Amino acid sequence: MTRLRDLAQELGLSATTVSRALDGYPDVAEATRARVMAAARRVGYLPDPAARRLRRGRADTVAALIPGGPGVELTALLHALGTCSATLAEGGLDLMLVPARDEAEERRRLARLVARREADAFVILRTRREDARVDWLLEQGVPFVTHGRTARAAEHPHIDGDAFAGFRDALRHLAARGHRRIAHVAAPDSFMFGHLRRLGAMAGATEAGIALSLAEATPDAAGGHAAVRRLLQQGPPPTALLCATDAIAIGAAHALREAGLRPGHDVALWGHDNIPAGTFLDPPLASMEIADPDIGAHLARLLLAVLGGADPATLGTVLPLRHIPRASLDATLTTQEETP
Amino acid sequence: MTRLRDLAQELGLSATTVSRALDGYPDVAEATRARVMAAARRVGYLPDPAARRLRRGRADTVAALIPGGPGVELTALLHALGTCSATLAEGGLDLMLVPARDEAEERRRLARLVARREADAFVILRTRREDARVDWLLEQGVPFVTHGRTARAAEHPHIDGDAFAGFRDALRHLAARGHRRIAHVAAPDSFMFGHLRRLGAMAGATEAGIALSLAEATPDAAGGHAAVRRLLQQGPPPTALLCATDAIAIGAAHALREAGLRPGHDVALWGHDNIPAGTFLDPPLASMEIADPDIGAHLARLLLAVLGGADPATLGTVLPLRHIPRASLDATLTTQEETP
Repeated sequence: MTRLRDLAQELGLSATTVSRALDGYPDVAEATRARVMAAARRVGYLPDPAARRLRRGRADTVAALIPGGPGVELTALLHALGTCSATLAEGGLDLMLVPARDEAEERRRLARLVARREADAFVILRTRREDARVDWLLEQGVPFVTHGRTARAAEHPHIDGDAFAGFRDALRHLAARGHRRIAHVAAPDSFMFGHLRRLGAMAGATEAGIALSLAEATPDAAGGHAAVRRLLQQGPPPTALLCATDAIAIGAAHALREAGLRPGHDVALWGHDNIPAGTFLDPPLASMEIADPDIGAHLARLLLAVLGGADPATLGTVLPLRHIPRASLDATLTTQEETP
Repeated sequence: MTRLRDLAQELGLSATTVSRALDGYPDVAEATRARVMAAARRVGYLPDPAARRLRRGRADTVAALIPGGPGVELTALLHALGTCSATLAEGGLDLMLVPARDEAEERRRLARLVARREADAFVILRTRREDARVDWLLEQGVPFVTHGRTARAAEHPHIDGDAFAGFRDALRHLAARGHRRIAHVAAPDSFMFGHLRRLGAMAGATEAGIALSLAEATPDAAGGHAAVRRLLQQGPPPTALLCATDAIAIGAAHALREAGLRPGHDVALWGHDNIPAGTFLDPPLASMEIADPDIGAHLARLLLAVLGGADPATLGTVLPLRHIPRASLDATLTTQEETP
């Protein structure tokens, strides 16, 4: 049986280089790896990474659970996870994403990955206030980082946008522009992002001394459409709609147009997520996003810290939101509307 | 040391049930699994799945590479992969997604997953006509399925929409409505989807005896915007824009409005992907999509077939596209435009 040492000698390379080439480490040049793999195949050498992983008790892999269902802006998320993956690779870790059709499947995959020791740490997305996945991981003592907070955020590493301040300030801004009939088209309160954005909008309205209408929506365009259609049937239309997400705002705009109201003219419209298409919509959609340009690398650093033994309770980060005003905010208020 | 048999006896369960519970198989009830895992922790029993995988020489895992960069409609894709995952689970296989920032990282991850035997088969997305990943996998003899064809599609299992016929028929349809100045806003020709949609549009125009303008776009909203802005500077505006993707069409609509032209009124607009927001845009965006309602399960069946030893050359499937007409097609042609 050919050994690693023999293979290295034949190739005129160090055993370390051959081992790292076969393991796919990025510090080995592409041409060298191709040469090593061809030689390994020729002489029948097979690396034994699974056995080595077993001895070391580590998978050198981080798993991110990708939830099914609406409410996650996947384009931005996948971009962030691509950057997270590249940063983890520098630390010798692979990132894998685990798709799940629903929450039951998500929990099953989580249990299976832990039982089979296929991941050393986890990324949990689209957090709920009471999150069964987080409860389970804390109970098992498995390292993880959440994108979004939970009711137990003090106990686990997390990264999140300051949705409360972002939506409170958006409400203030709308009130300062003269809006008095404002509605918040809210995402479900069981999701932490839905909860905090709603609390922020309510706090801003209270400060400004105005009443806030609440319309509950499933977090997608269809949900925004249905919620605003119901809202418009209940009374006089608001002059501004602050929506929990851009997708909700796109559905809301459609409901406004169906009622003969023009978004960005009769009614101001504001979302969150800064989706790539937002600037090309008619009117371009005002939005918000986390001010960190490299959220993925930040996530990777939290993972490396928690795997390095840092105290999870010190690894919470809440970043400010950046407002992105666009033409959908340009609603013309009549005098009657300004002083109801 | 506690053995599996002892643990099963203590719990009053069969060894098979205990083993499958610890492995996370979906046929074990959630409550039973919780009881088994709690007992295993209490007595210090650790399953040895990595060692067993090593003996069997299989990872029981399929990896899908998620490309970075623009041009992949991730919402539909992730939904399909969620369904694919659930179908694979019924066959005892896990699906993991591997994000990559660029093509170099994608190839590196692929080589690493093969070298470390962490996946038994692969799903390759956003295929190119000359696809280095496909060449490499064929050379290595590793099983895989592509979503989209390549120049070597006869050699590998694939699933794809019939983009040629779909775009040819769309062009026919526009010509039958009286359009004579039509442009195709095309995705890069190096991507198979960009190539086939372009060939289809060109074939339809040739049949109808009209000239087709081609505008090249990067496959996202910014690309569609830039391409149509250039197109409008070059001469009289077309009366219809057939776009390679919905994202391109959203950018194209913005460029039309900037030039004082109304999509769905002055210029007909048609995309592909049936993005969830499409029906809520102003005007609602005509689109196309693969007619199969469950592309993810179809993909899973191809994977199970190729892993079961079926001849890859028999596993190609090209499905018809379904046209989705919406108000963006309603352009009013003046007599002058109809007979240029």
